[in-house]
Amino acid sequence: MAFGWIDAQAEQRRRAGLVRTLRPRPADSPLLDLASNDYLGLAHHPEVVEGAAAAARTWGGGSTGSRLVTGTTELHTELERELAAFCGFEAALVFSSGYAANLAAVTALAPHGSLVVSDAGNHASLIDGCRLARGTTQVVGHADPEAVGKALRTHAGPAVVVSDSVFSVDGDAAPLDALAAACREHGAGLVVDDAHGLGVLGDGGRGAPHAAGLAGADDVVATVTLSKSLGSQGGAVLGPARVIDHLVNAARTFIFDTGLAPAAAGAALAALRLLRREPQRAARARAVAGDLHTRLTAAGLDAVRPDAAVVSVRAPSPEEAVQWAADCRTAGLAVGCFRPPSVPDGISRLRLTARADLTEVQLDGAVRVIGETRP
Amino acid sequence: MAFGWIDAQAEQRRRAGLVRTLRPRPADSPLLDLASNDYLGLAHHPEVVEGAAAAARTWGGGSTGSRLVTGTTELHTELERELAAFCGFEAALVFSSGYAANLAAVTALAPHGSLVVSDAGNHASLIDGCRLARGTTQVVGHADPEAVGKALRTHAGPAVVVSDSVFSVDGDAAPLDALAAACREHGAGLVVDDAHGLGVLGDGGRGAPHAAGLAGADDVVATVTLSKSLGSQGGAVLGPARVIDHLVNAARTFIFDTGLAPAAAGAALAALRLLRREPQRAARARAVAGDLHTRLTAAGLDAVRPDAAVVSVRAPSPEEAVQWAADCRTAGLAVGCFRPPSVPDGISRLRLTARADLTEVQLDGAVRVIGETRP
Ligand SMILES: Cc1ncc(COP(=O)(O)O)c(C=O)c1O
Ligand SMILES: Cc1ncc(COP(=O)(O)O)c(C=O)c1O
Repeated sequence: MAFGWIDAQAEQRRRAGLVRTLRPRPADSPLLDLASNDYLGLAHHPEVVEGAAAAARTWGGGSTGSRLVTGTTELHTELERELAAFCGFEAALVFSSGYAANLAAVTALAPHGSLVVSDAGNHASLIDGCRLARGTTQVVGHADPEAVGKALRTHAGPAVVVSDSVFSVDGDAAPLDALAAACREHGAGLVVDDAHGLGVLGDGGRGAPHAAGLAGADDVVATVTLSKSLGSQGGAVLGPARVIDHLVNAARTFIFDTGLAPAAAGAALAALRLLRREPQRAARARAVAGDLHTRLTAAGLDAVRPDAAVVSVRAPSPEEAVQWAADCRTAGLAVGCFRPPSVPDGISRLRLTARADLTEVQLDGAVRVIGETRP
Repeated sequence: MAFGWIDAQAEQRRRAGLVRTLRPRPADSPLLDLASNDYLGLAHHPEVVEGAAAAARTWGGGSTGSRLVTGTTELHTELERELAAFCGFEAALVFSSGYAANLAAVTALAPHGSLVVSDAGNHASLIDGCRLARGTTQVVGHADPEAVGKALRTHAGPAVVVSDSVFSVDGDAAPLDALAAACREHGAGLVVDDAHGLGVLGDGGRGAPHAAGLAGADDVVATVTLSKSLGSQGGAVLGPARVIDHLVNAARTFIFDTGLAPAAAGAALAALRLLRREPQRAARARAVAGDLHTRLTAAGLDAVRPDAAVVSVRAPSPEEAVQWAADCRTAGLAVGCFRPPSVPDGISRLRLTARADLTEVQLDGAVRVIGETRP
């Protein structure tokens, strides 16, 4: 049978304890959420929800085509203008997801004959971008600017260095200063995926490139997602106007994809405006993450010091990680559980996310549950 | 300078008359729309808009994480259940876009050592799926089931044949019967991208696989988009439960992407229910397309007979196609304009889409404008 080979793979996964299944999430979930990427607690904010609803009313349920065919709404233009200005870049282009934005940035900036230097811990979407790009990819060790410099030295012609700003699994930050220095020494461009930095790092949540003084530089491009701190869906590429114009002409996930739904653009724009008005949300998310780490460490857990809002706690094995997360859920706490093949180093962990709106009492409870259910 | 090479490409595009620029689209556009893929005229339907708004209110502005991490809302489950049932498949999995659904289906069903046979006219997202897949891709001539059989004959091991059901540029239909026969002769799976078939083809808009009697077969997978007939954003893969389970475990654009925004799921679900209640919308879209083609041909224009709701009209050159589309817009008519490098055969054309809600008077006016502005 055509798809019979799938059963053997499923059986292998079952034996290895690596089956993934979908769990229902009720609207009125009683769980305390330390699993989502809703870092600023904005996904359910009335202004964000009303931003989605108002945009659907004005612009319809969908964009009805590629923006190159059906045009660009004022809503998309405003979102792009305000995102670029907030993060300190000249221009922005919005995509249907952060995944699509990353595919666009990497493929369009790595033409035939170019070199892409990619951190071994990069997100799946950057990796897929490298695999789709016409240039040659060299993967370098995690957070290793020296290896980046070495890779660049061997190449003549266009080159880009591609890195998460905050790595999604362990929440550690990339050495952006050193990466930018290596890029500049060799005339390479720097592409930073700030999915977990926007809204959390930098002055008022302006993101990691802004914090590193790299925003707006003519050799730096950032990608962001609208689906984490901004509580919506979608992604964007931020950079020099010439790069954004180039994407409009060359990025397949822009040209051949339906424009971002108005409701998603409206929700993200409302969240961005909220963040601008309430910049303390960013600092609060960072403080909660630091606090969470301190408490977990005090409880004897093996937690990685967070550079942003993700706190990772190591588990002894995939099976025990899954059991641990399940026990947390039973006790009323939703946590993420990352295990092979989604972790680059093969180490399973609980992945906790700090939210700006978590209270002391909630943090107390969370740490108690995680400690009591440890394997 | 790092991105200096971009300027040379931009200059080349300028010289070739192939620069793409974004046009603003006002909310109260006075243009008659024959450019969008809103085939059933549902994107602005009050029930669809309210579906988006209500979902955002209940579930928030975004999904806040991968569904494997933050769980699956009842809304997503209902959408998947109703989509699968409507189209006649066992199960469905929803993605953030049709593009992501196609990447998922092709990559997850074309493992190392497998063969992918891909139609030369396939959509960019299927092509990118082929390029990301671990299997080997063989591109065959457009709509050529014999070539497909020949390609399959040379291969032992898992194989899939990948084809649009309705090709996005010319609106012509794939020979699904013959493709399925070739697949079955060689034990290969068939992956059909029904982006332009859902809502238009088949009984009440159940799509091309349903019309061909292929829906629900254990060797057939369909992908659909929620962004065209359903007036929203997102995509889905439909197929046997074993394939859908496999995607949950293996599809990178599912595992590593934030779940589809609730508002988009809500809008698509409302549109699907509308279509079920008002099945004549599908037949009406087909009739409008046929009518449009007859009138264009009677006016002496070189239009391709439509198999679904897309009507393509050939233009002598890219420059003249662009000018033609611009002149239509000036006269109050929005039309699509496809030209290299987005057309597989290098032929530029106007791309018109029939909508179920177009009136006789509007069709008259559209054909008159297209005729009067012809190059
Ligand atoms: C580092 C990183 N980049 C990109 C993405 C993709 O963004 P999105 O989910 O909005 O497609 C994610 C998460 O999903 C991520 O963690
Ligand atoms: C044939 C085909 N497949 C897939 C897609 C991608 O769907 P989406 O725009 O929903 O990502 C499109 C159009 O955009 C298409 O025309």
